[in-house]
Amino acid sequence: MTSEEFRRHGRQVVDWIADYLAGIEAHPVRSQVQPGAVRAALPAHPPERGEGFDGVLADLDRVVLPGITHWQHPSFFAYFPANASGPAILGDLLSSGLGVQGMLWATSPACTELETVVVDWLAELLGLPEHFRTDTAGGGVIQDSASSATLLAILAGLHRVSGGEVANGGITGRHTLYVSTQTHSAVAKAARIVGVGAENVRTVGVDEKTLGMDPAELDRAIAEDRAAGAVPVMVCATVGTTSTAAVDPVRAIGEVCRRHGVWLHVDAAYAGVAAVCPELRWLNDGVPEYVDSYATNPHKWLLTNFDCTVLWVADRAPLTGALAITPEFLRNAATASGAVVDYRDWQISLGRRFRALKLWAVLRWYGAEGLREHIRTGVAQATELARWVAEDPDFELHEPQHLGLVCLRPRWPDHNGDRGAADDATLRLMEHLNASGALYLTHTKVSGRVVLRMALGGTGTEQRHVRAAWETIRDTYRNMARSKKSAR
Amino acid sequence: MTSEEFRRHGRQVVDWIADYLAGIEAHPVRSQVQPGAVRAALPAHPPERGEGFDGVLADLDRVVLPGITHWQHPSFFAYFPANASGPAILGDLLSSGLGVQGMLWATSPACTELETVVVDWLAELLGLPEHFRTDTAGGGVIQDSASSATLLAILAGLHRVSGGEVANGGITGRHTLYVSTQTHSAVAKAARIVGVGAENVRTVGVDEKTLGMDPAELDRAIAEDRAAGAVPVMVCATVGTTSTAAVDPVRAIGEVCRRHGVWLHVDAAYAGVAAVCPELRWLNDGVPEYVDSYATNPHKWLLTNFDCTVLWVADRAPLTGALAITPEFLRNAATASGAVVDYRDWQISLGRRFRALKLWAVLRWYGAEGLREHIRTGVAQATELARWVAEDPDFELHEPQHLGLVCLRPRWPDHNGDRGAADDATLRLMEHLNASGALYLTHTKVSGRVVLRMALGGTGTEQRHVRAAWETIRDTYRNMARSKKSAR
Repeated sequence: MTSEEFRRHGRQVVDWIADYLAGIEAHPVRSQVQPGAVRAALPAHPPERGEGFDGVLADLDRVVLPGITHWQHPSFFAYFPANASGPAILGDLLSSGLGVQGMLWATSPACTELETVVVDWLAELLGLPEHFRTDTAGGGVIQDSASSATLLAILAGLHRVSGGEVANGGITGRHTLYVSTQTHSAVAKAARIVGVGAENVRTVGVDEKTLGMDPAELDRAIAEDRAAGAVPVMVCATVGTTSTAAVDPVRAIGEVCRRHGVWLHVDAAYAGVAAVCPELRWLNDGVPEYVDSYATNPHKWLLTNFDCTVLWVADRAPLTGALAITPEFLRNAATASGAVVDYRDWQISLGRRFRALKLWAVLRWYGAEGLREHIRTGVAQATELARWVAEDPDFELHEPQHLGLVCLRPRWPDHNGDRGAADDATLRLMEHLNASGALYLTHTKVSGRVVLRMALGGTGTEQRHVRAAWETIRDTYRNMARSKKSAR
Repeated sequence: MTSEEFRRHGRQVVDWIADYLAGIEAHPVRSQVQPGAVRAALPAHPPERGEGFDGVLADLDRVVLPGITHWQHPSFFAYFPANASGPAILGDLLSSGLGVQGMLWATSPACTELETVVVDWLAELLGLPEHFRTDTAGGGVIQDSASSATLLAILAGLHRVSGGEVANGGITGRHTLYVSTQTHSAVAKAARIVGVGAENVRTVGVDEKTLGMDPAELDRAIAEDRAAGAVPVMVCATVGTTSTAAVDPVRAIGEVCRRHGVWLHVDAAYAGVAAVCPELRWLNDGVPEYVDSYATNPHKWLLTNFDCTVLWVADRAPLTGALAITPEFLRNAATASGAVVDYRDWQISLGRRFRALKLWAVLRWYGAEGLREHIRTGVAQATELARWVAEDPDFELHEPQHLGLVCLRPRWPDHNGDRGAADDATLRLMEHLNASGALYLTHTKVSGRVVLRMALGGTGTEQRHVRAAWETIRDTYRNMARSKKSAR
């Protein structure tokens, strides 16, 4: 593609995206295609001859868009937000245009050094401790996802507890990890990957009300496992769980971890970025004193396109110790000098993109003020929705309600006493709502009961979208409740 | 950022990239900054108030570009090519604009189904076996890197050999992996990550001439390890090694693997894409009959921006068996039906970008014809350079020379008999060349001797760039050789 063709098609694509985002509300939020439909609409074989770019854009409209669930739709309330934003999209575009590899400092110094700057900026914005800064023995790094961050935290923990033996000799004997009933499945997946095994992930109970991990039970579990000959490696505490945005008591958990010499990782994938607001810094309680590693996702609620997870460690040595290998073809003077960071030793893969550009563009475009405003808007929307839910006799609000997530349950009078039937009705309500295309939400289970989740904080979500969604939920519920009665 | 601001800044960025790529030869190939220089030129603290996008672009020129090693420079011959191209950049831009998550089929069906189409297209273009297609029990998936593909192959191998026990109970007992002296360090890194341990990676010798793995030695090593009570898990054969693009004898290795029931992974990260040319399909010899998993990187030599590794498996069950966990919040009707692919179970992380768009754009823009022409251009450039090297009495060509990589060594008459001094002189020559900014190349060691590597096949590399590079190398060598003599 020549330079002039690139300019022309580049403008087409920029316009396509601007039009797409400006007109996104015309689409059903959740894709309505059946399995196989997108594939069936595409040629079975690749083209022999090259085609113009117009065909790609035409098929994007014709074939791809119907198969898209629109995460940027302002009425997308499922999972957690996946904030895209103009500056992030353009930062990523710059990264693609430069096309550099950041595996070593030497392979493009700016790729590494800009990353050290933006992760330090973000640590400052979130009020995280000085020892997470890259000009200390700790440091931060951008990962693709919180799953990878969790995996890396386990590897660092294994390295530290084994004095490096796991890296050389592999896992020998039983090693244990600690989560609560509310922890993300990424820990179980990582346990499979690192050779610890899913059954050595010990699940600790939670406080019935807060859904926070019970530190006393954690303490007992670690002591029991150690007495039985296992090696306790890591506790994963969560700040903002996936189900209900519950917050584990990091300080109390940290005291347990310190007593037992166990690595403490905080998965703040969703909620960590909220600490840009000083009034939400309580989320970090105990982090400065006790936490070995901490991850949060600007790609969820901080206006930065996926993928952008930031992982910080209080001490980089166990992380890089677990991962650093230098074959001949990667040897270079800068690495040998010890004066530079080689981020390949902070991640699973060797190759890496210049992801710092998008976070840099976001932090500069919005500034601290703009980021706080964005978080506060999501929190305010959630607070208002939670009030509507709490005041409606047909619905029950899950409390405590945290940050931008509202969990709710319709009351089904017909099913009093039959929880399974009520849960089924709730899932049918969700399916009705999602199939309508008017909004999209997901569910979880809390104490065995189905609960609907509405995650606010989308880049384009305004109060009117939340209001409309709530009215649709209420109306759909009433229609279902009425038709069920009449059917009896 | 409003829609109109996005249009405006989007055009600025597109123009910036077009100008950058058009004027890239004005930059020194390798960045000339010292450690810390980029960081020192940026503010110590994040901005309190948002800034315009123009500041980002200004700092890109002022601060970032001097710290960039220009992988897209036509005189970049280091490592392997990292081909960017217009359609790939724009495909990635579309992915950023859509901002969807492809973790489940249900979270955006087109993201998954377009990926199944393009990996099947690519398998067809490369002449890979039918059982790698996604409409069979096998299938393909886009990963971030060949490192991840290697890691996943080991996990699938562990799953198969243990009947799923490793996923549940973790690694128990000694498990072994097999590489040659030429295999990429990704296997050793993955061995640390999966809990097998680096010392359980057995290094098998190679044929002195071809540098291909010795199947007889592999056979003995596996038998010995098994006799000693270890569990042989996986052999990694390489099609196009990082040092010299050597090709392991996959067929003979495959026979050994089959006899021992060991997983065979082929790391064709660099060379696999060359099989778009029928005359290079010998690279795939033995792949259809023997290979369990196979990875190649369109992001190296097939015009597709990083990250885009394609991993195929002959049987998806051990891979997804190793990784699949379904917490409540991810349950959905499509997954439960079994009719769809959920790619989160084919990778380490949960979240995933819509990377298929860029590969789709590339395959359509270039077509099979254009891709073949690109590969043939790189091969022709390498063949011509190799001839120049071979015909020059001051240089020695490493043979066999494969594909787009040329390995060469200057002869240093002064150092006859002192190999260490000659190697040092070769490294000094490389440093002179790289410091000049005129070209960039890297080194490796073959049979203990330093060898310079020149990887052709850059998106913008033409014959004149190769010619100029070769002349610079010769002239610099002669100046060094002359000044050394006169210094005596």
